[in-house]
Amino acid sequence: MSKKMSGIGASNGISIAKVYILDEQPIKISKEIPKNIESELTLITSSIVKAKTDLENLQVIAKEKLGEEKAAIFEAHASILEDPAMAEEFTALVKEKNYNAARAIKEVADKYMSMFEAMDDDYFKERAADIKDVTERLIRYVLNIPLADLATINEEVIIVAEDLTPSQTAQLNPKFVKGFACNIGGRTSHAAIMARSLEIPAVLGLKTILHDVKDKDVLAMNGETGDVEINPSDKNKWKKLAENFEKEKEELKKLKDKPTLTKDGFDGFVLEGNIGSPKDVESVLENGGEGIGLFRSEFLYMDNDHFPTEEEQFISYKKVVEEMKGKITIIRTLDIGGDKKLSYFSFPHEMNPFLGYRAIRFTLDRKDIFRDQIRALLRASAFGPVGIMFPMIATIDEFLAAKKFTLECKAELTKEGHKVGKDLQIGMMVEIPAAAVNADNFAKHADFFSVGTNDLIQYTMAADRMSENVTYLYQPYNPSILRLLKMTIDGAHKHGKWAGMCGEMAGEPDALPLLMGLGLDAYSMSATSILKARSIMSKLTLKETQQLATKALECENSDQVLKLVKAVMKDK
Amino acid sequence: MSKKMSGIGASNGISIAKVYILDEQPIKISKEIPKNIESELTLITSSIVKAKTDLENLQVIAKEKLGEEKAAIFEAHASILEDPAMAEEFTALVKEKNYNAARAIKEVADKYMSMFEAMDDDYFKERAADIKDVTERLIRYVLNIPLADLATINEEVIIVAEDLTPSQTAQLNPKFVKGFACNIGGRTSHAAIMARSLEIPAVLGLKTILHDVKDKDVLAMNGETGDVEINPSDKNKWKKLAENFEKEKEELKKLKDKPTLTKDGFDGFVLEGNIGSPKDVESVLENGGEGIGLFRSEFLYMDNDHFPTEEEQFISYKKVVEEMKGKITIIRTLDIGGDKKLSYFSFPHEMNPFLGYRAIRFTLDRKDIFRDQIRALLRASAFGPVGIMFPMIATIDEFLAAKKFTLECKAELTKEGHKVGKDLQIGMMVEIPAAAVNADNFAKHADFFSVGTNDLIQYTMAADRMSENVTYLYQPYNPSILRLLKMTIDGAHKHGKWAGMCGEMAGEPDALPLLMGLGLDAYSMSATSILKARSIMSKLTLKETQQLATKALECENSDQVLKLVKAVMKDK
Repeated sequence: MSKKMSGIGASNGISIAKVYILDEQPIKISKEIPKNIESELTLITSSIVKAKTDLENLQVIAKEKLGEEKAAIFEAHASILEDPAMAEEFTALVKEKNYNAARAIKEVADKYMSMFEAMDDDYFKERAADIKDVTERLIRYVLNIPLADLATINEEVIIVAEDLTPSQTAQLNPKFVKGFACNIGGRTSHAAIMARSLEIPAVLGLKTILHDVKDKDVLAMNGETGDVEINPSDKNKWKKLAENFEKEKEELKKLKDKPTLTKDGFDGFVLEGNIGSPKDVESVLENGGEGIGLFRSEFLYMDNDHFPTEEEQFISYKKVVEEMKGKITIIRTLDIGGDKKLSYFSFPHEMNPFLGYRAIRFTLDRKDIFRDQIRALLRASAFGPVGIMFPMIATIDEFLAAKKFTLECKAELTKEGHKVGKDLQIGMMVEIPAAAVNADNFAKHADFFSVGTNDLIQYTMAADRMSENVTYLYQPYNPSILRLLKMTIDGAHKHGKWAGMCGEMAGEPDALPLLMGLGLDAYSMSATSILKARSIMSKLTLKETQQLATKALECENSDQVLKLVKAVMKDK
Repeated sequence: MSKKMSGIGASNGISIAKVYILDEQPIKISKEIPKNIESELTLITSSIVKAKTDLENLQVIAKEKLGEEKAAIFEAHASILEDPAMAEEFTALVKEKNYNAARAIKEVADKYMSMFEAMDDDYFKERAADIKDVTERLIRYVLNIPLADLATINEEVIIVAEDLTPSQTAQLNPKFVKGFACNIGGRTSHAAIMARSLEIPAVLGLKTILHDVKDKDVLAMNGETGDVEINPSDKNKWKKLAENFEKEKEELKKLKDKPTLTKDGFDGFVLEGNIGSPKDVESVLENGGEGIGLFRSEFLYMDNDHFPTEEEQFISYKKVVEEMKGKITIIRTLDIGGDKKLSYFSFPHEMNPFLGYRAIRFTLDRKDIFRDQIRALLRASAFGPVGIMFPMIATIDEFLAAKKFTLECKAELTKEGHKVGKDLQIGMMVEIPAAAVNADNFAKHADFFSVGTNDLIQYTMAADRMSENVTYLYQPYNPSILRLLKMTIDGAHKHGKWAGMCGEMAGEPDALPLLMGLGLDAYSMSATSILKARSIMSKLTLKETQQLATKALECENSDQVLKLVKAVMKDK
């Protein structure tokens, strides 16, 4: 029987396929006395090896697909298995109390878990959860009921689950996994971000779907609207929708080499791509990007076992600049610290890492590390137009200090005989409210601004979007955010500078008309959003977007703003 | 020989007294084999009892002087001592390996500490530090070299230390402790906040003072300027300064019953006090406060083992309102969650508690808990003018939801036959940038604003002022902050509402001229700052403060702003 459901569209695309139900049952542990102590001990040892191999593999896969940061959890899990004290306790229980292997592991795990849980401290409680994850994996090996291996899926399916953990998403193969539908999660959850970067359609927050589907059901889903249908009554309609989605994709491809123009012919807007490493350049160019508005330099630091040298960095930056063939590349200096850690450098522990020692605060404090990057960037600027962008600037003093340091490095390089690009631009991220509020004064010194919406929204709303209970405050369309954007853009223009955006918002179809109306100059987004943005811009006149923005700035909440946007976008 | 030093003035007042050097040496542990196993075991047991008693006492003292929140650390420490597994391990080492008590404790402590430290996780590392604290206290009892007992100081001294921990500050008796001077810390460190509330002069961040003083030295210190002199060459000068400080205090007392007036006779500014519990009302009235601009309601929740009932709350609120005899009392609804925990309620663990589930986000989510407070507040409003103030408002929707709920409770109470004050005001804290930026729209709905500067600065700068590495970004005088204040004040006035401030900044002498110029209506501060503020206001004309504010809004950094302020305040 067909059943319609509605969840949160978390990654665009339309799919119809057989379900793959990921529903892991709790393990039962017997009190059976083992027949052979020695073989029981061997079983534990071999299971530890298997579980460790698992975790090591997961770490490698995760590093590749998700980056160092997200992979770190698996290293922490592996280190629990390496604790010799724990292994000794397993052995003691088997030898002295005749416990079977699974029971021994469970007993020790429970002891540590209850010790941690008793401590009335959230940190310990979280560690208890880690121990649970790891020891469950171990027990599953002992009992020979391993965890579902999503990497081995070899037919087209849509995964239905309670939630997907990092270790699960890391394994998905987009060739066979045509989508996933989960009971929990939202647009900014890990599963969603992952889905978008793998280009797998996803609908989350469906609450009961895991309960509602059964084996061999067929699922149809629309990752944009959040609509889902179990055993669709009209499969052809869904297939048609999927085809249309693909067709629109084809239509958009035709815009690849077209200029970015508004309906009334204004050509002042630029559409660019965000990249995380040199291999992403290709996708930006294929999708008609007119530049790179954000090149995150973290990959060089995170996928490494040492601070990258000037030379190592220079090679990467130069490669990108050359491949962009005269189009601009804006490179953001190291945005690390706080929640983003390095394996080879220990950051201070902080209660609120998002409000802590990170990005420019770290690099201005550690000029030794900063120098290598700045020199590499300056040298790369000899090979094409480059913008150096400082992250997390809160005060004019910080910007001036970073700029002065850059100019000193430049003088040094010139003296050494190195070439430095003549039209180098030195700009900054606007992602801290203080910078937006005082943008007109910052614009006297900075060559450009680029708004980082995720952080700007988080700080302006004082809400960590990763914290479940306050995600409702992550409101890109809140009039307070729009007002800060206006201050930023007007501030830049007052001194003849340009203002861009490289946060998620720049690529959102609903945001584009507002940003155009506010006068934003540069829009940098995921490569896959560029053509859609070009298409939307071509359907709007500058004047109608300006009228929209003026009204939106006087709204009282996001809903009112979005209603105005929908009215303008109707029938376009 | 005399030696001058300069640190951070962290708590006003001038003192000259003998030094009390707090310089704790590391403990040495021998490998001696104990003569009598039983007595060694008894020693451990009795030391645990002593250390636990210590921690329990500290918890009580801390709760009284510093509140539940800061006292919680001692409870956590006590729970480590209560772990039976740990005690068993001590016993085993003494019995089986002939370890002496101290060595056994050290061995077990080291084992746990290295286990935690090996886990490559900052949370664990911090727990390792807790274990160190607790086991050191235990070992000191075993070896009979207890920690310095600051509570027993019975002659006038100035404490010189590396830093003062919460357990140390909790013990200070202001009758004998005339000041403290530490190597580390700043104006917003725990030691500083504590010093101000105990009215003990303090100079922090002196870097080397612990190394520079020796026993029997005399120290002179100025807690306002940060000047310190070891063995002052001119003791009389210091005594004179101390007398002048006392004399000025006396002068200020004369302003107690005088109206708050500017030099040119403007009478629109109101000076109020911040309080944390009903017992603080007396000090506000004694210091000439014209109202209470902030009554923190947390004490009712934190010094308790259950959510306080409507009746319990009503009694407290009514007491304050009645004692204020017709002067306004602004009561802030529960501002808890995030870093402020309750012993009887478990908040979710969050990576960035300052950006999390707290204050209005919690109470709007838990209307059952909110209802008791709102009803108690409404009932108290029948006994004098009351303002209900919602903390952490980020969006107009949140304010409207809280206001609607309040009005529903009001209708309910009226129906039940309760009286509710006719001139009740419903307002909000402005402590999140989003609220300041959109203040004119918020002012359509709120009766008043009160700026919470600590949080507003933290969020605007994206810097946790408790995080050592970014304290430099806690800049109340940064033009970005001043601009947000202007938006807030102008927004209120546009709709005929009033704007106040109840953060630390409201009482700062350097801030007052700026805030007057920006048109702030109400200034709520520590009771002890009110008279000084009245004196400063009486020396300034409205016009000169307005000219100052206009210039300050166009500055590029705090230094420029403070220079303008100093120029205006010169010779006043």
